[in-house]
Amino acid sequence: MGAEEVTPPPKHSYDGNTIMELSRTPRPAPFLNAAVRFASGDDAPRAFLERCLDAVAAWEPAIGAFVHINLDGARAAADRSSVRWRAGKPLSAIDGMPVGIKDIIETADMPTEMGSPLFVGWRSGRDAASVAALREAGAVILGKTVTTEFAATEPRGTRNPWDPTRTPGGSSSGSAAAVAAGLVSAALGTQVIGSIVRPASFCGCFGFKPSLGAINRGGSYDYLSQSCTGVLGATLHDTWQVARETAIRAGGDPGWPGLVGPAQPPAAVKPRRLAVLETAGWGVASPAAQAELQDVVARLKRAGIEILTRHSNAAVAALEVAIIAARPLSTGIIAWESRWPLNTYRDRDAAKLSRAMLDRLEQAEAMTIDDYRTALVERARVRGVYAALVAQCDACVTLAAPGAAPIGLGSTGDPAFVVPFSLLGVPAISLPLLHEQKLPLGLQVTGFEGDDTETFAVAAWLMQELGDPHG
Amino acid sequence: MGAEEVTPPPKHSYDGNTIMELSRTPRPAPFLNAAVRFASGDDAPRAFLERCLDAVAAWEPAIGAFVHINLDGARAAADRSSVRWRAGKPLSAIDGMPVGIKDIIETADMPTEMGSPLFVGWRSGRDAASVAALREAGAVILGKTVTTEFAATEPRGTRNPWDPTRTPGGSSSGSAAAVAAGLVSAALGTQVIGSIVRPASFCGCFGFKPSLGAINRGGSYDYLSQSCTGVLGATLHDTWQVARETAIRAGGDPGWPGLVGPAQPPAAVKPRRLAVLETAGWGVASPAAQAELQDVVARLKRAGIEILTRHSNAAVAALEVAIIAARPLSTGIIAWESRWPLNTYRDRDAAKLSRAMLDRLEQAEAMTIDDYRTALVERARVRGVYAALVAQCDACVTLAAPGAAPIGLGSTGDPAFVVPFSLLGVPAISLPLLHEQKLPLGLQVTGFEGDDTETFAVAAWLMQELGDPHG
Repeated sequence: MGAEEVTPPPKHSYDGNTIMELSRTPRPAPFLNAAVRFASGDDAPRAFLERCLDAVAAWEPAIGAFVHINLDGARAAADRSSVRWRAGKPLSAIDGMPVGIKDIIETADMPTEMGSPLFVGWRSGRDAASVAALREAGAVILGKTVTTEFAATEPRGTRNPWDPTRTPGGSSSGSAAAVAAGLVSAALGTQVIGSIVRPASFCGCFGFKPSLGAINRGGSYDYLSQSCTGVLGATLHDTWQVARETAIRAGGDPGWPGLVGPAQPPAAVKPRRLAVLETAGWGVASPAAQAELQDVVARLKRAGIEILTRHSNAAVAALEVAIIAARPLSTGIIAWESRWPLNTYRDRDAAKLSRAMLDRLEQAEAMTIDDYRTALVERARVRGVYAALVAQCDACVTLAAPGAAPIGLGSTGDPAFVVPFSLLGVPAISLPLLHEQKLPLGLQVTGFEGDDTETFAVAAWLMQELGDPHG
Repeated sequence: MGAEEVTPPPKHSYDGNTIMELSRTPRPAPFLNAAVRFASGDDAPRAFLERCLDAVAAWEPAIGAFVHINLDGARAAADRSSVRWRAGKPLSAIDGMPVGIKDIIETADMPTEMGSPLFVGWRSGRDAASVAALREAGAVILGKTVTTEFAATEPRGTRNPWDPTRTPGGSSSGSAAAVAAGLVSAALGTQVIGSIVRPASFCGCFGFKPSLGAINRGGSYDYLSQSCTGVLGATLHDTWQVARETAIRAGGDPGWPGLVGPAQPPAAVKPRRLAVLETAGWGVASPAAQAELQDVVARLKRAGIEILTRHSNAAVAALEVAIIAARPLSTGIIAWESRWPLNTYRDRDAAKLSRAMLDRLEQAEAMTIDDYRTALVERARVRGVYAALVAQCDACVTLAAPGAAPIGLGSTGDPAFVVPFSLLGVPAISLPLLHEQKLPLGLQVTGFEGDDTETFAVAAWLMQELGDPHG
């Protein structure tokens, strides 16, 4: 259906001598500000898309953010959107927005390969719930963004636009890289450990992992109990708007109320109390990253916000203890829940599964259903400890990663700062406010389950207070 | 892969003059009793399968229970099982059991057509979680059983083995017919309104819809918030064992503990108090069916069991009021949750969707996410009313259907007696204990969420007390 096959750059073969991209600064493509000019005719979705396609031409050969691009389909969709804006009848606030879809999520017009050699060229013939909703809202689906194998750990060659010798993070690797470099204004991602917030931090865009169940995962090969569909965006506004327009049309996961919040992005609300969390990440964070967070804390205190830490507050201290083993607890839960379909994939062709996936399956097969039940009980306990914090503070802040994106494409980086909030099922947002080694580093804001709006309101205030007023 | 395509008989074209089957009584093929003879060598899974294949030859042309049969695959699996039994090393209690898989559930070796012209010949290339678990337990997957379109209401021509002019019920039409006539010992089904318990009642086999989340639905195109994978079986023991062996390997739905219960089928436990429920079904039940239930109640009273009804107990009365609108409430929830993927299927080819599916999609598109949230709140309230009954009684009993299977293949019958327990998410079992018009009618036993073992124990006692000692 007019989809062009885009071959990602070969893995691990980057030639450092040709880094001409280093002299170019990645710039995102904010959409909502542009949209006000669509109605007046000063700009149009098709022209907006063409500017994104210029960015694709400039960046894609170096970063490999896409697996497939449907150029004809995107242009046709942008043209239809242009007509609607001229007529004053956009379908939604994101009508005409160029978006990318993580390649773990089904699209009717392009293959869904899941980062797996088992699914090369595989077509489901249908759109996922989230994709159908985006099309209904008028969004322009540009292409499928690179995911690690089955949204887990095995990278698929995407490079960080700030430094192509570095990982963009994962598993939503292509979504983060594409948004950061302005190839699209936003992209769908998914997170079960740290797959939205971590790549957003490494690539310097916004990343929003909503509360559990907030965005319908139908047609996304991401069925684990603590995984979510979320959004990587050029701005906080774009990020909210994509999540919201998707959720009101697709709903949340069956049985869940779906993302609750206003039609317009939540306005900034100054928090009274914030908890600053260390998590297991603090011990592995770089001194420069630690200093960045400490600087934020100092600025927040100067702004009159009460800061709670493990040293000043018993509930925070209890939480820090409770989440220290978030990673092995999550890994066990995810392994059991991955027993299927990995067992049927192994039956089909074990040679096409990475060592990491075979190891996960082995871990699953060494578990009993009682081991899993025990892990669920422990997860529920930890969630209770976090939920109790709601009486103490408006939100929590911490780093989104232990430092800038590490050098090398063989790993997507350390998830120590992100896994607790995946385990907890709470909203988590990465704000591109910090730097390390002159590279992006996210400030992570986390809220309480179902309170995605309140979390966004705090995030908006943090952007006002801490963001570069000229940025 | 050796799968034979079996064309179901053409719809609505049955020639009543050739009903030679009416003189033959459907007989199920209980497995667990036979299995004790496998170890001794007096019988073998391959021989057992061949007897089932004799039944397939005798019945299948008249009832059309299967969409696909993998004869070679089943025979090979039965041979491997025979070797294991001879060696004294069966993989499980159901090693060698011939089973059918509702065609809404993926199989690596056969297409998954979902009763939809959109999916004719469609192959996912993998086994669903439940199917992978059954193979791991040594079960012999004989074929895919007929489902209504997308496990909803549009029938696909299967006939009732007790009277081929009558519906077998649905949506697990083929599973019920195949089990009742002994083509397999058990079959997987799914239920969101009444799709296991109703066809079990009409066909005279056992049907078990477990608690929500009890059996992993991964790879089943049945993702609605109140739908479940369950089992239709030749005996209560076979039914439990298939559910249990599946659940310990596949787990429950991600995040759920999965079916909780013993390795051996729960032993009979005499209940002290049972609630007899009318539901919205009582008003449409035939006088003969009402008399059957009243006779059961009289026998239970004589056995010393305290019977609670809406007339004698306030909690039961409150429940009867709460569930009276179970059907429209369920229909609204299901419509919203079906918006996707029906919208993407309509985009593909609306002419291949039934009027019923297009109507459901229209209903969904007339709803807002707030309508859906309101329905979820009401469902939670009704569940609370039912859960309060746990202090009053050990289980509930009612009819599984308003009467015997109705004449005609255009409808799968009235779900009035089954929809409340789907809405409630609780275990429900149809026991082939009653008759109407000399045809089967199920006695439905329902328990409390997660108490599947306790519900089975009551069901086992009811079979002892009320079953035909010579049957």
